[in-house]
Amino acid sequence: MKIGLDVMGGDFAPKNEVLGAIEALPELQNGSEIILFGNETQIKDVCREKGFDVSRFQTVHTSEIIDMHDHPAKAFAQKPDSSMAMGFKYLSSGLIDGFASPGNTGAMMAGIMYTVKTIEGILRPCISCLFPIITGRWGLLLDVGLNADCKPENLYQYAILGSLYAKGALGDTNPRIALLNIGEEESKGNLVTKAAYELMKDSRDFNFVGNIEGNELMTGEKADVVVCDGFVGNVILKMAESFYRMARYQGIETEFFSKLDYEYHGGTPVLGVNAPVIIGHGSSSPKAIKNMILNTEKTVRAKMVDRVKSIFKDSSLNKKENTL
Amino acid sequence: MKIGLDVMGGDFAPKNEVLGAIEALPELQNGSEIILFGNETQIKDVCREKGFDVSRFQTVHTSEIIDMHDHPAKAFAQKPDSSMAMGFKYLSSGLIDGFASPGNTGAMMAGIMYTVKTIEGILRPCISCLFPIITGRWGLLLDVGLNADCKPENLYQYAILGSLYAKGALGDTNPRIALLNIGEEESKGNLVTKAAYELMKDSRDFNFVGNIEGNELMTGEKADVVVCDGFVGNVILKMAESFYRMARYQGIETEFFSKLDYEYHGGTPVLGVNAPVIIGHGSSSPKAIKNMILNTEKTVRAKMVDRVKSIFKDSSLNKKENTL
Repeated sequence: MKIGLDVMGGDFAPKNEVLGAIEALPELQNGSEIILFGNETQIKDVCREKGFDVSRFQTVHTSEIIDMHDHPAKAFAQKPDSSMAMGFKYLSSGLIDGFASPGNTGAMMAGIMYTVKTIEGILRPCISCLFPIITGRWGLLLDVGLNADCKPENLYQYAILGSLYAKGALGDTNPRIALLNIGEEESKGNLVTKAAYELMKDSRDFNFVGNIEGNELMTGEKADVVVCDGFVGNVILKMAESFYRMARYQGIETEFFSKLDYEYHGGTPVLGVNAPVIIGHGSSSPKAIKNMILNTEKTVRAKMVDRVKSIFKDSSLNKKENTL
Repeated sequence: MKIGLDVMGGDFAPKNEVLGAIEALPELQNGSEIILFGNETQIKDVCREKGFDVSRFQTVHTSEIIDMHDHPAKAFAQKPDSSMAMGFKYLSSGLIDGFASPGNTGAMMAGIMYTVKTIEGILRPCISCLFPIITGRWGLLLDVGLNADCKPENLYQYAILGSLYAKGALGDTNPRIALLNIGEEESKGNLVTKAAYELMKDSRDFNFVGNIEGNELMTGEKADVVVCDGFVGNVILKMAESFYRMARYQGIETEFFSKLDYEYHGGTPVLGVNAPVIIGHGSSSPKAIKNMILNTEKTVRAKMVDRVKSIFKDSSLNKKENTL
């Protein structure tokens, strides 16, 4: 498996990216390799400083950088020799199996749309995050930030994507899917969640267990996968992350709280697109980069693209879409 | 000051309500009294069991109960001699200065609409909650559940209400008001928050400091009052409350985490209405009831109604409404 990493996009690029790749290498499974996209001289410098043999990576030299100030949609046309554009070129050509970047999220999404594209039938892709269940397992929350204004049919599709990801990456055989809401009853919620509930309640595309509220997320008692719009999901994700810092501020370190730290996974897979793409934090530390690379390996192994494609051939689902 | 308490509406009524009132009595300020609305025999029984002199309360006997199964809008017509309906009757007649109930939230809102009503100019009332800032202060979040589908102008008004409440109840002289969002920049957010930002950015009705994200809520670095729609606010509130339980599950008890427990305040004031009304959890413990009563006293003293009425006479604000 070839895992591509954009080493130029982060706030501390390329140092943290290269250091993270060095840390990830011994933890990858046999047959996995890391391909670094970025300035070769700078990559060599970081390796030399660390006393690490750069030839253990394949590097693809690029001369341009898409940064946080670039306009997402224009960046690819303006900077074809950027690490991000080149990474997507390799990904869409099948030269790498997955691509990870801590760079400009908007530009990453533009890169997806211009190259690998969304899977046919998917209305809008989304990003998901794993959150710790107090008893030790992991839960999955999606969307956590791509689609701030969701329609009910988007939430329906996220339920499918979440169910498939939980099967592929978490090994859940029959994940319980819940809709995040402000009351348990079917009649509760805002206009979008009420309509989404109507779509979901008789679904045969996933195992819908109903609404759950904010206090039930981390108990894991009712659901394994929690679906919400990208606005709510992003607020929750960031708030949960902040509890890691709140705990540390009070001198508390537990496994549960440390799992809330963004560095624990380092990045979030984009679901519903034709190739594994992982987006990380701009300010990623080497540890976060390392975990993003391992996360990319896991996502590639989950064979999400095949799973999503196969289920989206299902006629009941297409019918559901057409009626919306 | 006369504080009315509906002792029949909660899940453990009237026991927890009466016990909570007994606990609250010695902590109230001089001149504050508690008026209990409910079944007099049952109230006496709880007092007798506790060895408490029931004559220290004024009681208003009622023969009916509005419970969780009652239809909010119909309950008042069907049960005029319920504890909740009678409480609102006393409140709107000025016989009590504030009214608190752990009963059916929908029915409480219907009670407000039928009796004390919203303050002229307020489009939709909201409920707020105090959340702990890690450094020890309190922040204010609103709306936390009344209005799941907010318009930008609702959020604008919540900013005014939050600013006034922070001045009146928290003693902030110039509270910093932020919009909860999924990015700092003006261009970030969903359709509603983007439009709300436009309304808020040049406001002279409050001290707007811009967007904050979910991880900045409890640091208190940027804002004292955080405005969001009732869907997001409710999810956040319940999630924050669950962190109290997550901490306890791990054997952790700190002041910060204990402040996340809903019992700490016991109830949330309804803002934008013509009299102080506090809504509590249906499953309130005696401690929660006690704190709800103390919270009601604080809210009455904050003179929110006068503050809101006076600012809503301001012409710039009315102009702002008319242009929406």
